[in-house]
Amino acid sequence: MKVDGTIYRTVSINGNSVCLINQNTLLSGFEIYESKNHIETCEAIKNMTVRGAGAIGAAAGYAMAQAFVEAPSKKFLDYVEKAKQEIESTRPTARDLFDATEKVFRTGLKSRDNSHRKNLAKFEAGYIAKQNEMACYSIGIIGNGLIANNSRILTHCNAGWLAFVDYGTALSPVYIAKRRSKKLHVYVSETRPRNQGASLTSWELRNEGIPFDIIVDSASAYLFSKGKIDMVIVGADRIAVNGDTANKIGTLEKAILANEFKIPFFVAAPTSTIDRKCKTGQYIVIEERSQDEVLYQKGLTRHGKLEEILVAAPGSTAINPAFDITPAKYITGIITEKGIIRPCENGINKIL
Amino acid sequence: MKVDGTIYRTVSINGNSVCLINQNTLLSGFEIYESKNHIETCEAIKNMTVRGAGAIGAAAGYAMAQAFVEAPSKKFLDYVEKAKQEIESTRPTARDLFDATEKVFRTGLKSRDNSHRKNLAKFEAGYIAKQNEMACYSIGIIGNGLIANNSRILTHCNAGWLAFVDYGTALSPVYIAKRRSKKLHVYVSETRPRNQGASLTSWELRNEGIPFDIIVDSASAYLFSKGKIDMVIVGADRIAVNGDTANKIGTLEKAILANEFKIPFFVAAPTSTIDRKCKTGQYIVIEERSQDEVLYQKGLTRHGKLEEILVAAPGSTAINPAFDITPAKYITGIITEKGIIRPCENGINKIL
Repeated sequence: MKVDGTIYRTVSINGNSVCLINQNTLLSGFEIYESKNHIETCEAIKNMTVRGAGAIGAAAGYAMAQAFVEAPSKKFLDYVEKAKQEIESTRPTARDLFDATEKVFRTGLKSRDNSHRKNLAKFEAGYIAKQNEMACYSIGIIGNGLIANNSRILTHCNAGWLAFVDYGTALSPVYIAKRRSKKLHVYVSETRPRNQGASLTSWELRNEGIPFDIIVDSASAYLFSKGKIDMVIVGADRIAVNGDTANKIGTLEKAILANEFKIPFFVAAPTSTIDRKCKTGQYIVIEERSQDEVLYQKGLTRHGKLEEILVAAPGSTAINPAFDITPAKYITGIITEKGIIRPCENGINKIL
Repeated sequence: MKVDGTIYRTVSINGNSVCLINQNTLLSGFEIYESKNHIETCEAIKNMTVRGAGAIGAAAGYAMAQAFVEAPSKKFLDYVEKAKQEIESTRPTARDLFDATEKVFRTGLKSRDNSHRKNLAKFEAGYIAKQNEMACYSIGIIGNGLIANNSRILTHCNAGWLAFVDYGTALSPVYIAKRRSKKLHVYVSETRPRNQGASLTSWELRNEGIPFDIIVDSASAYLFSKGKIDMVIVGADRIAVNGDTANKIGTLEKAILANEFKIPFFVAAPTSTIDRKCKTGQYIVIEERSQDEVLYQKGLTRHGKLEEILVAAPGSTAINPAFDITPAKYITGIITEKGIIRPCENGINKIL
């Protein structure tokens, strides 16, 4: 996508450095963070400089490739194996992360020659990123077919361009619909605690000139009850083979509520998000993040400075599950790069 | 309730000044705001120095009494009538506000003697505040009967002591249960956009020594799905005679979700919150507040200073409905000072 006339990708590689659009500081300005080795890339995944299913996957693939490039000839295998574990311990819920490290690791080791290994790993990581971009574009083309003119769409968190290499998943159909001259209005659920809706999705929509309004996370039932939403589209961090979907905390609520008000609820995700080893949602590990994400909020002061403030009574504690599992029964359909499928084993097996 | 060993009321009168626990600055410290006339009291209601159904009612009653005291003998009636309109235009959704102004206005005008009128109005306003306190205490005693030992209770927004003259509604049963030595854990929904859960309910629970954890508003379905909540108790700003209930935005979501997971969902409110003129929820006016409440957040910096920061992408817009309507069918029961009633015309008529 373009920012001020220049084409960018959320995650890209420049020599052996991974370049990331810094999503922790996007409120105060557009900035590229360059991570020089796999340790720095791990840190960027952990502290959410890069976040979102596909972008994490691409960054993890590149981090794995960085480890191959860094690996000393003597203890080559030890080094890349340890790096793989390090990368995989950054964010436990994201399916694409494990998919990418596994692929780069296996492809890299197809040769016995270390310098060949480095090239193979770099090639595979680049291929994963490109594949991610193409899958997202397809999701946009296919999902656009679901969007009528004048649609009012609710989304949660950020499953847009910034969560992938390009286009995004939940927002990709919105972008394609807009290019096909459809009129749209997007309601952006702010997505506490980290506000990816208010800060990232809003930033993207504004950048693309699509009208939107932010709402607090708990206002969706109100909008549903007033007949103000035609459809919900969200992303996914991991999908079990029965269609159960792990996504940002709050997704489960939106799905149940949409169901109650008979509003279509779509998940948009590339097939790489489907975890063949995972039978149902109950096997998906939910990441518990620091309570400080709930107790403190980061934002811009009047003077344009990023500041963190305490928004709870001093001395309070919080719990902070980062994701929840939406059972397949609440999901109308899953928009993938291979078509729209029913959220059940049958539907998923057809495209795997 | 006691703060540091001293007994306080959320709203009280001292001479002709209305004394309010300042809820806009509670994060940075406990402070009493004194409003010297009805205009200042209106402003305090509007800017939420005082908020919460019962506290607004008591403050509005006192504001009406202040207007009687201020009224010039020549244009006495004009003055108090105009003041009544001013007070009633501060917050359109709160039932108790209209109830209080109406009662003080009518009682005040029962005499033809102006100085007698002033005394009647002051007496009536004090009586309303005292009645509110007693009703809340009864709600606590009655609601306590619903709370088993070791209960895990979810609440939304602040329907505690700070939202009333004393005790509160949703939290009153919790306080009584605690005094009866029951073990409890409260989950506090932070309640965006103004964070009354995180800032006020947490403050109250901490002050009372009751263990709690804050959650983001959209994490309740997750907790329900994990079997971590035994019951939900919330307050109410206005109840229609069919049991439909207006309360803080997000209440509707909690009710539908609790229903989906078969968790009891209780509304706690004094009978003064029931609006006899209001047949169903569809007649309740929903207050739309400024988008800045969503786009900006107020909290404490590391240096203990109250600061407001922008938490959305610059240039974003937001919509900010302050309340929603929970249809009676999602409500297990309404805890009133006269007993627990079924949320239907029959149940409500029995106690009115």
